[in-house]
Amino acid sequence: MQGQNQQQAYDRGITIFSPDGRLYQVEYAREAVKRGSASVGIRTPEGVVLVAERRSRSPLMERDSVEKLHKIDDHVGIASAGHVADARQLIDVARRQAQVNQLRYDETIGVETLTKAVTDHIQQYTQTGGARPFGVALLVGGIDDGEPRLFETDPSGTPYEWKAIAIGGNREEIQGHLEDEYSDELTLQGGIDLAIEAMAVGEEDGFPPEGLAISTVETESGEYRTLELDEIENRLAELDLLTEGDDE
Amino acid sequence: MQGQNQQQAYDRGITIFSPDGRLYQVEYAREAVKRGSASVGIRTPEGVVLVAERRSRSPLMERDSVEKLHKIDDHVGIASAGHVADARQLIDVARRQAQVNQLRYDETIGVETLTKAVTDHIQQYTQTGGARPFGVALLVGGIDDGEPRLFETDPSGTPYEWKAIAIGGNREEIQGHLEDEYSDELTLQGGIDLAIEAMAVGEEDGFPPEGLAISTVETESGEYRTLELDEIENRLAELDLLTEGDDE
Amino acid sequence: MQGQNQQQAYDRGITIFSPDGRLYQVEYAREAVKRGSASVGIRTPEGVVLVAERRSRSPLMERDSVEKLHKIDDHVGIASAGHVADARQLIDVARRQAQVNQLRYDETIGVETLTKAVTDHIQQYTQTGGARPFGVALLVGGIDDGEPRLFETDPSGTPYEWKAIAIGGNREEIQGHLEDEYSDELTLQGGIDLAIEAMAVGEEDGFPPEGLAISTVETESGEYRTLELDEIENRLAELDLLTEGDDE
Amino acid sequence: MQGQNQQQAYDRGITIFSPDGRLYQVEYAREAVKRGSASVGIRTPEGVVLVAERRSRSPLMERDSVEKLHKIDDHVGIASAGHVADARQLIDVARRQAQVNQLRYDETIGVETLTKAVTDHIQQYTQTGGARPFGVALLVGGIDDGEPRLFETDPSGTPYEWKAIAIGGNREEIQGHLEDEYSDELTLQGGIDLAIEAMAVGEEDGFPPEGLAISTVETESGEYRTLELDEIENRLAELDLLTEGDDE
Amino acid sequence: MQGQNQQQAYDRGITIFSPDGRLYQVEYAREAVKRGSASVGIRTPEGVVLVAERRSRSPLMERDSVEKLHKIDDHVGIASAGHVADARQLIDVARRQAQVNQLRYDETIGVETLTKAVTDHIQQYTQTGGARPFGVALLVGGIDDGEPRLFETDPSGTPYEWKAIAIGGNREEIQGHLEDEYSDELTLQGGIDLAIEAMAVGEEDGFPPEGLAISTVETESGEYRTLELDEIENRLAELDLLTEGDDE
Amino acid sequence: MQGQNQQQAYDRGITIFSPDGRLYQVEYAREAVKRGSASVGIRTPEGVVLVAERRSRSPLMERDSVEKLHKIDDHVGIASAGHVADARQLIDVARRQAQVNQLRYDETIGVETLTKAVTDHIQQYTQTGGARPFGVALLVGGIDDGEPRLFETDPSGTPYEWKAIAIGGNREEIQGHLEDEYSDELTLQGGIDLAIEAMAVGEEDGFPPEGLAISTVETESGEYRTLELDEIENRLAELDLLTEGDDE
Amino acid sequence: MQGQNQQQAYDRGITIFSPDGRLYQVEYAREAVKRGSASVGIRTPEGVVLVAERRSRSPLMERDSVEKLHKIDDHVGIASAGHVADARQLIDVARRQAQVNQLRYDETIGVETLTKAVTDHIQQYTQTGGARPFGVALLVGGIDDGEPRLFETDPSGTPYEWKAIAIGGNREEIQGHLEDEYSDELTLQGGIDLAIEAMAVGEEDGFPPEGLAISTVETESGEYRTLELDEIENRLAELDLLTEGDDE
Repeated sequence: MQGQNQQQAYDRGITIFSPDGRLYQVEYAREAVKRGSASVGIRTPEGVVLVAERRSRSPLMERDSVEKLHKIDDHVGIASAGHVADARQLIDVARRQAQVNQLRYDETIGVETLTKAVTDHIQQYTQTGGARPFGVALLVGGIDDGEPRLFETDPSGTPYEWKAIAIGGNREEIQGHLEDEYSDELTLQGGIDLAIEAMAVGEEDGFPPEGLAISTVETESGEYRTLELDEIENRLAELDLLTEGDDE
Repeated sequence: MQGQNQQQAYDRGITIFSPDGRLYQVEYAREAVKRGSASVGIRTPEGVVLVAERRSRSPLMERDSVEKLHKIDDHVGIASAGHVADARQLIDVARRQAQVNQLRYDETIGVETLTKAVTDHIQQYTQTGGARPFGVALLVGGIDDGEPRLFETDPSGTPYEWKAIAIGGNREEIQGHLEDEYSDELTLQGGIDLAIEAMAVGEEDGFPPEGLAISTVETESGEYRTLELDEIENRLAELDLLTEGDDE
Repeated sequence: MQGQNQQQAYDRGITIFSPDGRLYQVEYAREAVKRGSASVGIRTPEGVVLVAERRSRSPLMERDSVEKLHKIDDHVGIASAGHVADARQLIDVARRQAQVNQLRYDETIGVETLTKAVTDHIQQYTQTGGARPFGVALLVGGIDDGEPRLFETDPSGTPYEWKAIAIGGNREEIQGHLEDEYSDELTLQGGIDLAIEAMAVGEEDGFPPEGLAISTVETESGEYRTLELDEIENRLAELDLLTEGDDE
Repeated sequence: MQGQNQQQAYDRGITIFSPDGRLYQVEYAREAVKRGSASVGIRTPEGVVLVAERRSRSPLMERDSVEKLHKIDDHVGIASAGHVADARQLIDVARRQAQVNQLRYDETIGVETLTKAVTDHIQQYTQTGGARPFGVALLVGGIDDGEPRLFETDPSGTPYEWKAIAIGGNREEIQGHLEDEYSDELTLQGGIDLAIEAMAVGEEDGFPPEGLAISTVETESGEYRTLELDEIENRLAELDLLTEGDDE
Repeated sequence: MQGQNQQQAYDRGITIFSPDGRLYQVEYAREAVKRGSASVGIRTPEGVVLVAERRSRSPLMERDSVEKLHKIDDHVGIASAGHVADARQLIDVARRQAQVNQLRYDETIGVETLTKAVTDHIQQYTQTGGARPFGVALLVGGIDDGEPRLFETDPSGTPYEWKAIAIGGNREEIQGHLEDEYSDELTLQGGIDLAIEAMAVGEEDGFPPEGLAISTVETESGEYRTLELDEIENRLAELDLLTEGDDE
Repeated sequence: MQGQNQQQAYDRGITIFSPDGRLYQVEYAREAVKRGSASVGIRTPEGVVLVAERRSRSPLMERDSVEKLHKIDDHVGIASAGHVADARQLIDVARRQAQVNQLRYDETIGVETLTKAVTDHIQQYTQTGGARPFGVALLVGGIDDGEPRLFETDPSGTPYEWKAIAIGGNREEIQGHLEDEYSDELTLQGGIDLAIEAMAVGEEDGFPPEGLAISTVETESGEYRTLELDEIENRLAELDLLTEGDDE
Repeated sequence: MQGQNQQQAYDRGITIFSPDGRLYQVEYAREAVKRGSASVGIRTPEGVVLVAERRSRSPLMERDSVEKLHKIDDHVGIASAGHVADARQLIDVARRQAQVNQLRYDETIGVETLTKAVTDHIQQYTQTGGARPFGVALLVGGIDDGEPRLFETDPSGTPYEWKAIAIGGNREEIQGHLEDEYSDELTLQGGIDLAIEAMAVGEEDGFPPEGLAISTVETESGEYRTLELDEIENRLAELDLLTEGDDE
């Protein structure tokens, strides 16, 4: 309890370090990420796959409106986990950055450059007072000069590059599955299937088609594409993970 | 009590996360929404229906002045629940956004675009210090390219799309009724009747005609229309939910 | 006492909600309104009546200087209850708004438009930090396109329209009298008398003529007019509510 | 003691109301006024009289420098009680306002207009954070269109008009004397004498001539005039209230 | 102890009044003045005398650098007591004010005008948050239209005029001596001697010549002049108050 | 425990000193540096060596994206330890400073000048409120006029020059090894080997090639160069410190 | 302990005085000065001497980079003690001031003028909120019109002039030695030797040559000059205070 009291003394604002050099508010923002449903990103030679779970509070809600996958530019998409409204702010930052790059240099923005513009924005909310950190993690996936890239941003504002990664609720189990099953030679199709299977770890019943959102950015075309509902349904059926949806 | 004390340590300002990643002030703003009387939105192929209960503190008050339904543009309306004065601020944001869109692009604003402009505004009041969140939820209903759309905004600044939804006091019971009775093939008239019946759940006596405000945006005309008092009276009578008003 | 302690935890600033979604500072500002002497507004087909009690701290004080009725424009007046100095700020806001409207659109401002400009101003003092809410309620009465209108503004910044209403000290008893005696067919004279009688509820001795301020905005002329002292004296005598003043 | 603890919870800043709707900081500023020596204003048909007591901390201090009467314009003077340095700020506000009026409209400022410009300034220091209220009350006396006027401003920023009034230390006893002895038909000389006698209530020994400052604004001339030391000495002698000063 | 606790509740910031209307931070700033060594000002018909004690922390310190007397303009000087660095800020304010006056009106600034410009500056640091009061008192002495004037400023920002006054440490004893010995007919020389004798009250051993700084502004010449070390030595010897300095 | 309580009283903000003259928040930021993995810098006559450990949270993470070595300009690099997102901000400051120097003076920035521009930026975050210190230490290495230079910046904003230095986790042991083994006559190759051996102190198993990042700025060429993975692998093998990586 | 508790109540911010008129944060900043290693300044007819101890945290650190002596202009140098990063800020202020003076008036800045520009800057950090005082003391030495001058600045922002002075750790013992041994007729060489001997008080073993930094500004040349390592070594050897350095 002594320990707990000490912690409480240093976790009320982003502008103070604890005696052991931690920023508690940033750590609590990571908890906010865990409260959200999971998203998964997988990089394959054929392209990047982004998959997000979409939970519905009611059968009358349009799951499409649970926005967890966002097209940023023709060649880049972002998946999010955590505080949805916070994610929307960062998505706006990313889109503006992509547009500015296009206008200023007349070329599409690099995936890494884009990621770092976003993490710099996030960092400022962890150092300057009068605001709270962003309670959201992002997966930034896209094609850079014909090369598939996949980055993660966390609430501290640090960028990491990944072959395959899970963020949000149940992250540890999903990441474990990815580490067990990931191979450098996955096809794009194989990447989609691995992502779905990983998401299903701990979800006993599988998903209805509208319970998942799936996007890809293919290496060859360099184009961001959102999978149609029937494509998702096919994949789920094939993987024996299809449950009945809430629409019918 | 330990738990309660801990909660209190993190719920005094919007700029801090609790150790489990929650924003208590945003959750308390949701309670402010529940303190208000209910509003219901229903989407049918023939158009969107918005219904709001108007409670009167005295028979001498003009119920018309309890503003819960607002015309934003020819093709969009908003219903609110919660802190009335807060709602008015967001209605202004929405109207300005609609005008700006008209002036800048010479076209009417999309219902989804409009909703997201409002939720972005709401989000900023949950992250930056020196203010409190908006204690209000909105239903944004209208016609987009001949398509009826119905969105909800909550105090966190997250947008959701719905087929049918209740906000405000007694929300759970009303939503339960909507989930039981909603069908994709409702007529506009059927939508109005379902909304009234849902609102009546838990209200033993029904409503006087001036106790409800009802608006529609029809798919064909794309026009926002407020029902006259006698139209409402007819519907209430038909549904056997008419009580005597306070005017006579 | 537990309950009391909890309340105290959330009522020290306007920028926080309590766990049950209340804004205590706004509720306390309503208490400031109740500390002031009462004002009454009555709408009749022939015009709007505003009546305010003027209490004197000493027989040497000029009761005229206890400003509770204010002419805003030729066709609109405002009565206040609560913190007098706060009321003066809102009266300034209202007058400026009326002038701006005249200059910009070359037409007199509508009573409802005027009221909402004032309530929007009030709301901002309930959401943004660094200030306190306005401790005052207003009655805005006037003629809109030949139509008598009567609005109330409260410390939350919500506008309501009324047929007849009391604000300030002893509000409940006065409002009860109004509800019992109000009729839609009152003459302006009848409205004045009803307002005086309602104000007298709980005041055993009646009023000296200078103890009341009375204004009307007549429907036909659309002109704001302040009653002379002898007119008030006549009405009080007629209603058997005349007491001796402090001037003689 | 419970009551005392509760009070303390709400009196640390101007931007919060107490649960019963009070602004404690404004009330404490009124206590600062009572800590100052008294000032009295009296309105007679022949003009306005302002009298202030000047206390000396040492016989070597120049009592003239204890500024409690201030000429604002040819036709208006102000007497103060309370925090002297705060009074000087408001005197500056009043003088600037008088000059601006002269320059802008080419006419001398009305006494009421001037008073309200000052009270509006005071009110802002009671609502917006980052400052404290003014710990001073003022008496504004002058001639408006040949009419003598006398106003009071208090720390809440409320203006009141008076026939005769005392502010500052021992206010209640002095005001009681004024209420007993004031008559509407006082000559200016009679007003001066009444003011001196009222000030002497509770001062057993009377005053040395330099212990009082006296100014008048005569109705006919409309001119602010400060009485010479020998005039004051004569009046004190006549009223049998002359004590030996500190200068000889 | 109860009383002590209450005091502590209201003395942590300049922007709050205590329940009895006091500004504790201003009172504490007065204590800062008492912590400094004393300064004395004396007004005689032949001119104004300013004397300040200069204490040395070490025989290696140049006492000249302990700045307590400052020439502001040809005809005005200032002596200070209290927080030295704060005094320097006010000296700068005074000098700028004197220059501005010269440039704007092409005439030397009046001693009273100058004093009030400084006290207005001081007052603002007692009302607006985010800063502390000035912990310094000043004596402003000079010649106005051939008239010697001597003013005091205190940490509240109030100006007082004096014939003779002490500020700083041991103020009460020194002022007592001045009150006993001051005469309106002092020569300038007599004023210097009285000031030295008063400063010596409570200093058993007298002063070394460099332990005092002495300036005069003579009525006839209107010129600020600093006494040379040997002049001071002569006066101290004559008054039998000369001790050995730290330089030899 | 008394001591602990006292400490806690002064360590909640950067803008206060503790009674013994310490800035606890800056000291806690130093703890944040120790939480990061180590970096080492070594200066030899042939050039400067920067080595950083890169830890991986998962075999699926790209260790290259754990950015701890940064090219600032052709002739300067920076290694960091501590809060990664904070380091990125300082890297940006350094790069902008290098560019500005190039543009303004048309010459490459000196290593010392660059370091001090960064430390000045860091210092401001330790003195002005509303932000926290940077939780990061940097090693700035490069060539100045043919001279190898190596600087350290710490969270207080102090620059130090070194022959060889370790920052971050396990700093003390690594520095001890450097002090034992450093010689002024090291070759660049010898510097790389010493840095790797020092980093390995306390790491029982050695490193996989991708577990270290190594850069050099050679004195002769004056060029910043990053070692390829196989070069690192060779060095590790030679030093018998090679473990199996996570990629195969 | 009561006393200690009281102190703690007033020492958390620079913007409040304690009840006895003290500014605790400024006093704590003085403690920060004492935590630094010592510096000494000595004024002789032949010039000013500045000597600073440079401690090394490791034999691998370049002691030259422990900056405690700074050339400000050709004719002025500054020695510092305390928080090194704070000193750098003030050095920048001093250098900018010197440049501005040169540009604006086309003449070198006076040593006293320069000192006061720095102390004014320091004072502002002791009165206005949102920052902490500077934790550093400076010795400003130089030649003014052929006259050697030596000033000290402390954390309160007060300037003092000295013949000889020590600041920083072990100040009292060193100053005692200076007071015992200082003579007005020291040669520059004698000043250097006295400074070294004073610094050695309490340092049992003497210093390695690189453990001291020594600068002079000679009266005749008016030029700031830093002593070479062998010059320092010679002086230390002569004074029998030479220990072995860390470089060999």
